[in-house]
Amino acid sequence: MDNFTFYSPTFFAFGKDTENDAGKYVKKFGGTKVLIHYGGGSVVKSGLLDRVQKSLDAEGIPYVLLGGVKPNLRSGLVYEGIDLCKKENIDFVLAVGGGSVIDSAKAIAAGTVYDGDFWDFYSGKYIEEALPIGTILTIAAAGSEGSPDSVITKEEGMFKRGATGNALRPKFSILNPALTQTLPAYQTAAGITDILAHLHERYLTNTKEVEVTDRMIEGLMLAMVHEGPRVIADPNNYEARANIMWAGMMAHNNSCGVGRSQDWNSHDIEHELSALYDCAHGAGLAITMPAVFKYVYKHDVMRFAKLAVRVWGCQMDFDNPEVTALEGISRLEIFLKSIGMPSSFAEIGAKEEDIPTLVKTLCYGNGRNGKLNGFVSLDEKDCTNIYKMMV
Amino acid sequence: MDNFTFYSPTFFAFGKDTENDAGKYVKKFGGTKVLIHYGGGSVVKSGLLDRVQKSLDAEGIPYVLLGGVKPNLRSGLVYEGIDLCKKENIDFVLAVGGGSVIDSAKAIAAGTVYDGDFWDFYSGKYIEEALPIGTILTIAAAGSEGSPDSVITKEEGMFKRGATGNALRPKFSILNPALTQTLPAYQTAAGITDILAHLHERYLTNTKEVEVTDRMIEGLMLAMVHEGPRVIADPNNYEARANIMWAGMMAHNNSCGVGRSQDWNSHDIEHELSALYDCAHGAGLAITMPAVFKYVYKHDVMRFAKLAVRVWGCQMDFDNPEVTALEGISRLEIFLKSIGMPSSFAEIGAKEEDIPTLVKTLCYGNGRNGKLNGFVSLDEKDCTNIYKMMV
Repeated sequence: MDNFTFYSPTFFAFGKDTENDAGKYVKKFGGTKVLIHYGGGSVVKSGLLDRVQKSLDAEGIPYVLLGGVKPNLRSGLVYEGIDLCKKENIDFVLAVGGGSVIDSAKAIAAGTVYDGDFWDFYSGKYIEEALPIGTILTIAAAGSEGSPDSVITKEEGMFKRGATGNALRPKFSILNPALTQTLPAYQTAAGITDILAHLHERYLTNTKEVEVTDRMIEGLMLAMVHEGPRVIADPNNYEARANIMWAGMMAHNNSCGVGRSQDWNSHDIEHELSALYDCAHGAGLAITMPAVFKYVYKHDVMRFAKLAVRVWGCQMDFDNPEVTALEGISRLEIFLKSIGMPSSFAEIGAKEEDIPTLVKTLCYGNGRNGKLNGFVSLDEKDCTNIYKMMV
Repeated sequence: MDNFTFYSPTFFAFGKDTENDAGKYVKKFGGTKVLIHYGGGSVVKSGLLDRVQKSLDAEGIPYVLLGGVKPNLRSGLVYEGIDLCKKENIDFVLAVGGGSVIDSAKAIAAGTVYDGDFWDFYSGKYIEEALPIGTILTIAAAGSEGSPDSVITKEEGMFKRGATGNALRPKFSILNPALTQTLPAYQTAAGITDILAHLHERYLTNTKEVEVTDRMIEGLMLAMVHEGPRVIADPNNYEARANIMWAGMMAHNNSCGVGRSQDWNSHDIEHELSALYDCAHGAGLAITMPAVFKYVYKHDVMRFAKLAVRVWGCQMDFDNPEVTALEGISRLEIFLKSIGMPSSFAEIGAKEEDIPTLVKTLCYGNGRNGKLNGFVSLDEKDCTNIYKMMV
């Protein structure tokens, strides 16, 4: 196991009606003037935004509203949010929504206390400081509610890139599974896929003898495989929603990824798709992951065989572990299709002729040097081959 | 899943040589005058204490020393520590040792900023405030390095009782698996047993549909079952030590115990043994757990069968799930024996004739009302039966 540090100081309030304590938690964590950041109409229509405002009112905490975050959020609104926070002397950013809203809130929180262009952080600069952030989660997917990460697309160049820093860990996150019950099935499935991807990116390691984190990752995957079909069959299944929601946080706060090298190539390859075609990130991952895994599995056949046996219940082929490894990837594909996720370029509106553009942005955009480092190092040719497998 | 809050803000530094950063972390978390609290001679002989002192010297942070914590620590030294902290204006308590040292440090930290008798906290009062605590862990076992809990024995009455409060969560914990390599095999095995017990106490729940935490617990158990024999066979196996050390923290910071009722009856029943006979807590648990589980398994046969199949690799007997449930408990017993743990009263110096005394202290001591609540509610008669099974 590699040396590591781990720090996940977010306070989580989990369960029914917990959003009504938002004001109480803002106060507890020192907020005196709040930016409430949200997305489209759903949090308005559902009455959630109203409940959150009431809870701040009850604590006598003033706030300003900034809605309009879209999935695959772009940088324009972030600049607007930063200006607003500076102008209004905001000292706490409260995100009400899914991963995009939270990631936008994180960018605003970091950008407000930074003199330069916030995009510096999305070009590799570590985030040392940010306004305190709280979240009220409405989609179990990105894990941003417990992570130090944020992903944003810059319109100029359409670069979808990530930033990180412990300052981005939310002070508190409110997780009410009931808030996710109104999600369309496709969004729910895309969330499940994103969670599975966060687990796979950590599972694909070159570090030896990391049984404890292997087992934790496998356990979380098994829970998703159990709960996914249940929630697709019955969107109102609170218990399934609750299990998925906690798994989504645990999958990405990195407690099961410590002390081991990680991958993240599937994420990087997917980001180009959701940046260019505006597909759901999870849907893009459903197409990307099987292609990447088939391309790289020979690098460590036994790791893929272990995953196949332990998570997908495959019988180990002791004469031909490769057969088992590939069967596991096949089971993943079948699972993702079964919950309604796409399996080809066409289904997300992607086009074969765009592959050179995708590869160029992926490998060289925003200062990259032509290589993706991870479980297996991938160059321009590898990425081209992988995108072609997805057509 | 039940509503819950979860808050685990400890900063963990994990890996080789990390103890040399102790001073840096004390400074980072605001300590300006430190009590270094430790146990017997081993941290002196190994040079660990010296390295920790040097690291504080390097940061210019003054400290006073208080050694002498014994396993199954008692309250006398806590009172001494509280007086010392008040006299010396200590503002940070640094524990260098295992669970007993850390628990003693926690009691001192809470008692120093409390006007009453610190034992109030061990009689049910929630701990709202304490001096900040840091830990340098030398035994993977108690999980106190990441937990809000502390257990102490009061000499008067020999009550071994626990206290809790988020204020007891360490600000930082330094986990260097190499520091555990010199432990005697028996202590290592007792630590593994304690970790398994923390997992079982959470696994035995009456909350339905908690697959995500079930799977996390099972994963951590599987890792212990894999690593336990490896480390007993080769005490210098750093990788096995590392996996066990992270599992020990994860088993008890409660991320896998949230939203579900828990048990803790095995712990309470054991505490009387280690209080009275001064046996290793883990050794006491090795005797206690199988007895408790055989006594209560009929309350939820399928839960025990699930544990047997998923963790112990038993084949499910679909006609007689009870057979599988009992086979799982039997496999646990075999495992504990295989790593050198005792399986009967005599092996820890316990005596059948003491059972009435044990039961009286367990069920009525320190203000208890005759009942132990958990997976199954146990009264005086139940506890007597369980102790008799252990003879």
